[in-house]
Amino acid sequence: MTEELNTHFGLASREHLSSIVSLLVDDQFGAGREITGDELDERYVAAFAAIEADPNNELIVAEHDGSVVGTLQITYAPNLTHKGTTRATLEGVRVASSLRSSGIGTRMLNWAIERCQSRGCRLIQLTTDLERDDAMQFYRRLGFKHTHAGLKLWL
Amino acid sequence: MTEELNTHFGLASREHLSSIVSLLVDDQFGAGREITGDELDERYVAAFAAIEADPNNELIVAEHDGSVVGTLQITYAPNLTHKGTTRATLEGVRVASSLRSSGIGTRMLNWAIERCQSRGCRLIQLTTDLERDDAMQFYRRLGFKHTHAGLKLWL
Repeated sequence: MTEELNTHFGLASREHLSSIVSLLVDDQFGAGREITGDELDERYVAAFAAIEADPNNELIVAEHDGSVVGTLQITYAPNLTHKGTTRATLEGVRVASSLRSSGIGTRMLNWAIERCQSRGCRLIQLTTDLERDDAMQFYRRLGFKHTHAGLKLWL
Repeated sequence: MTEELNTHFGLASREHLSSIVSLLVDDQFGAGREITGDELDERYVAAFAAIEADPNNELIVAEHDGSVVGTLQITYAPNLTHKGTTRATLEGVRVASSLRSSGIGTRMLNWAIERCQSRGCRLIQLTTDLERDDAMQFYRRLGFKHTHAGLKLWL
């Protein structure tokens, strides 16, 4: 119960950004493709500013005992398909490696799902690397169905 | 060559909406979940207005000999991951059943890919139902890689 009280979910502010980037690095894939250092790479700063300026994008943080321990991004989009359904796409879902399987990830996702509902979404979607076996099980437990292939084209 | 000259790709306007919804119905999955009729369902009208009002969403149409024969939606989103990469998500990609395998779908996608590049995207992503074998081959020919699982949660 105390642990739950000490965890807080909310919108990220600029002060969280360094910790969020550290979380992106604290990941089997992110370690090789993200950048950390004493000074935050300006591309992260620019991306954060763009997310913050867009009412259809939200960067979420989970804080536990005052530390950033989880993050995800929600992109809300109106769509014509499924009779004009508004859908949410989740991106960059990360939990600190020291807290995986602690339940914080599940609570962060359930918080995000409620937020998507309150924004009028009827569908939430995400893609996860086919090599992330643990992630697949995690999302399935939350009720996600693996009905689609996730295709990527790098330019 | 004449055929190419008679095909035009561009942003959809309100006048295209009925034809676009008809394309969504002209589909193995869409037939059961979309609505057509003499009068356009107001949910499509509302979704179109929301797409048109959002600078990070674009509804695309392909017109051939003056008829709407293809459509797709692009959602542009700033992301922190991959060093602050802007990515595009494609949704609702449809080509008229009478024109599948004609090359129009490929040209529409290549047009969309160039558009995403011109908007500064480095990554384009989409999900396609695992039962759509033809679609998977189509995207693979365009260079998309099936590296991810596409997960969906209906609310």
